[in-house]
Amino acid sequence: MKVLLEIRYLGRDFHGWQVQPGRRTVQQTLQIAYEQLVGQPCGITGCSRTDSGVHALQFFCTAETPCDINLPLERLPVAINTLLPGDIAVLRAKTVDAAFHPRYFAVGKAYEYRIRTDRLPDPFADGLCWHYGRPLDIAAMNAAAGFLVGTHDFTSFCAASSDVEEKVRTIFSLSVIEGKDGAVLRICGDGFLYNMVRIIVGTLVGVSEGKYKPGDIPAIIEAKNRGAAGLTAPACGLYLAGVFYEKEQIR
Amino acid sequence: MKVLLEIRYLGRDFHGWQVQPGRRTVQQTLQIAYEQLVGQPCGITGCSRTDSGVHALQFFCTAETPCDINLPLERLPVAINTLLPGDIAVLRAKTVDAAFHPRYFAVGKAYEYRIRTDRLPDPFADGLCWHYGRPLDIAAMNAAAGFLVGTHDFTSFCAASSDVEEKVRTIFSLSVIEGKDGAVLRICGDGFLYNMVRIIVGTLVGVSEGKYKPGDIPAIIEAKNRGAAGLTAPACGLYLAGVFYEKEQIR
Repeated sequence: MKVLLEIRYLGRDFHGWQVQPGRRTVQQTLQIAYEQLVGQPCGITGCSRTDSGVHALQFFCTAETPCDINLPLERLPVAINTLLPGDIAVLRAKTVDAAFHPRYFAVGKAYEYRIRTDRLPDPFADGLCWHYGRPLDIAAMNAAAGFLVGTHDFTSFCAASSDVEEKVRTIFSLSVIEGKDGAVLRICGDGFLYNMVRIIVGTLVGVSEGKYKPGDIPAIIEAKNRGAAGLTAPACGLYLAGVFYEKEQIR
Repeated sequence: MKVLLEIRYLGRDFHGWQVQPGRRTVQQTLQIAYEQLVGQPCGITGCSRTDSGVHALQFFCTAETPCDINLPLERLPVAINTLLPGDIAVLRAKTVDAAFHPRYFAVGKAYEYRIRTDRLPDPFADGLCWHYGRPLDIAAMNAAAGFLVGTHDFTSFCAASSDVEEKVRTIFSLSVIEGKDGAVLRICGDGFLYNMVRIIVGTLVGVSEGKYKPGDIPAIIEAKNRGAAGLTAPACGLYLAGVFYEKEQIR
């Protein structure tokens, strides 16, 4: 029986999504609780492999068990949350077809990246944003962001260690919004390469600092070389904010 | 030399303000960082003794050293924050008279209490609110709150273990405001007894649940008996939000 779970987690104390021996990960924490709840072995498959320290406001995964589970699915979230630690919560559970795969079936994803510009740190934002601590040139960042929207080969914005071959992706929207004590970058696309959002953030901050001009972005894309783009922004500011499927897939 | 520090802390991983052997407390964490920064022994005195798990959006304390410190005070916050863990931050530092005492000189305090009414937990609110998980009758709570405003003997709203003798306090304002996924109680007064805000919250939630009627509050006050009031709400929802001094004291 394959159950789709909508979850949410604060990534600060997790070594990312994926099971790693001897490390606290979201996948393993969830698997242990699910197996304890349903009394069967279970395989958990996620929609994304978030890195250590990255957060998820919305994340989907499937939990597959050999037999049907003996619990109405509408009661599953409340029941499993009593077995989960406070930094992860299950919000919704529903059955899906055996063929459904939460990563391959996703048609789009949205991320947020939170930057704090106030000079002094805030204990209530610790581990929840990049404490950049200086003002940002939001207008220049948005001017540069405009060149990234669309379909491009994003090799320059992909961690050099990635072994993905096809690096063409489409960014549907990208904007930087000024807030009370910092800025939020919102980005939506059909898929993202390894570290792509964090390298985009690092590059736009480089634009704010005058290292690049907004008009340099097309040449940075064209270079197809990780060295042409900016630094990788810290993991703690990144939030997976939405994952989109065709409607009929998860009715 | 006596320096007044304005600080802010997330209480989740602290055993409250006051030094206790073998426990991580705010007072001790701050003392160690201050002594390391200024290279002198230092005595730290706080404006309040917050309990384990209680947060402070604004908190004042003094740091007293035998000799003058060798650092411009406007640079002290940035310098000491590099020595402090992420759940505590110093926002401001200024000299005060040797006679100044951050607790005895306070003329008023404001607290916030955050309650989450959504049924499902939120990992980003874990340890930062009371996860009550059911709807609240905000109108009944505010009707009851009205009876608490003013000058009363608050013995019924003071932890039985307290050894304070004078239990008359004045509440200047008290209201419960509905929010997106819960409610916030805001209270302002000239001083608060041990657990007073948490017992007020527990009693107002008792009113919401129908255990008491708003009109029962005067009799609960009159009883001068801790057993007459409601439960003590959990520490994690409580925030010291403001501490007030006469203007000329902290110029």
